[in-house]
Amino acid sequence: MTGWLAIAGLGPGDAALVTPEVSAALAEATDVIGYIPYVARVAPRDGLTLHPSDNRVELDRARHALDLALAGHRVVVVSSGDPGVFAMAAAVFEAIEQGAPEWRTLDVRVLPGITAMLAAAARAGAPLGHDFCAINLSDNLKPQAIIDRRVRLAAEADFAIAFYNPRSKARPDGLISALAILRETCADARPVLFARAVSTPDEQLEVVALPEARAEMADMRTVVIVGSSRTRMIAGTRFLYTPRSAA
Amino acid sequence: MTGWLAIAGLGPGDAALVTPEVSAALAEATDVIGYIPYVARVAPRDGLTLHPSDNRVELDRARHALDLALAGHRVVVVSSGDPGVFAMAAAVFEAIEQGAPEWRTLDVRVLPGITAMLAAAARAGAPLGHDFCAINLSDNLKPQAIIDRRVRLAAEADFAIAFYNPRSKARPDGLISALAILRETCADARPVLFARAVSTPDEQLEVVALPEARAEMADMRTVVIVGSSRTRMIAGTRFLYTPRSAA
Repeated sequence: MTGWLAIAGLGPGDAALVTPEVSAALAEATDVIGYIPYVARVAPRDGLTLHPSDNRVELDRARHALDLALAGHRVVVVSSGDPGVFAMAAAVFEAIEQGAPEWRTLDVRVLPGITAMLAAAARAGAPLGHDFCAINLSDNLKPQAIIDRRVRLAAEADFAIAFYNPRSKARPDGLISALAILRETCADARPVLFARAVSTPDEQLEVVALPEARAEMADMRTVVIVGSSRTRMIAGTRFLYTPRSAA
Repeated sequence: MTGWLAIAGLGPGDAALVTPEVSAALAEATDVIGYIPYVARVAPRDGLTLHPSDNRVELDRARHALDLALAGHRVVVVSSGDPGVFAMAAAVFEAIEQGAPEWRTLDVRVLPGITAMLAAAARAGAPLGHDFCAINLSDNLKPQAIIDRRVRLAAEADFAIAFYNPRSKARPDGLISALAILRETCADARPVLFARAVSTPDEQLEVVALPEARAEMADMRTVVIVGSSRTRMIAGTRFLYTPRSAA
């Protein structure tokens, strides 16, 4: 049996947002590996072994997946959202680069998914309709000074900004610092979207002006989108959007 | 009949990358509106009217869709990729904001899709595995000075950068200018991915070092991803990735 490894994105939660490509890979898999709540989204069946693991063991999980694929298994590593955005794809490639030479010969594919910021943006309107950036506030390998500098430069560049993992265990105060920098750099009342658990039964959306934005409005399941200087609400609607023109 | 308007993303090209949510909306639609090559991706059937239109008439197209929905039609506006990323969603919301008050009462939904940079990143490995930004080089409403400044700040912030529409009719030389700024600001040999028509029969991927990157390597169907200072190839593989740690 020839093994392979697919690193797949399950999207934000709703099964209607899982691509047919990912569903097909799961249907052919012998093993599914990932963080407990993501593996729980895969239906059990005969011939499929589920390997749920705890958070913050990404490299161990990646090595396990690579070993199984090398042994001939058909392995799907699952992430929520898109696997290439603050998820398992980078961890698997780190493991390949640091690991056994045989791993470099494996059939490895990344299967994209609907990442949280795009699901959140769609629900709220089109806040990412002009140039934007994505910043992970969780990564405990990233010095705070680098995050602060990046947030400031992103505001100076007038990007809309999507913050992933705004309140993680690794860095519970990341969003407090980011919002303080933005209030200082932007000095306006641009809208800020707090989008929690989009497309799940726990979905909650809240839009507030930047001066009123508080870190407590986010938790570990929230993505936060801060508008650019041009982002605005449409009066009389629930819609938030960024026009296509820059000025 | 109660009309509605869905602004849907068809993904980069492959039908296996269209979400079930989008397929369901198309199955219920009476009218599909969009740029000619995107409407051509929707299968004709009885009861469905296809309205293909030329490029650069986004606002006219949006108004047409809103009028039809108000008249009770079930309308899907199609974009490739994700409708909220340099596509039709912002145009529809601009039309709503500028247009008839009745349009604000319509049932309007945005249905996310796999945007070009995520499809391209997945094919190449995980170049967007750390903080990144997306910049549209096409927008003819955006002064060149704003683009230049944004590219420079993005490089200073050490984002990986995805360039959409690197060589459009509106601005054929946008990428020449962006690459010159990056060579000046970065002064290293970070990898640059040219990903053309990903997931279609015309797919082509090319990775070169920044000093060797030339605008002619892109055309209107290409997305260009410039790595951060940390992005690298894995020797002996075709994979490009950005590690999760910042330093």
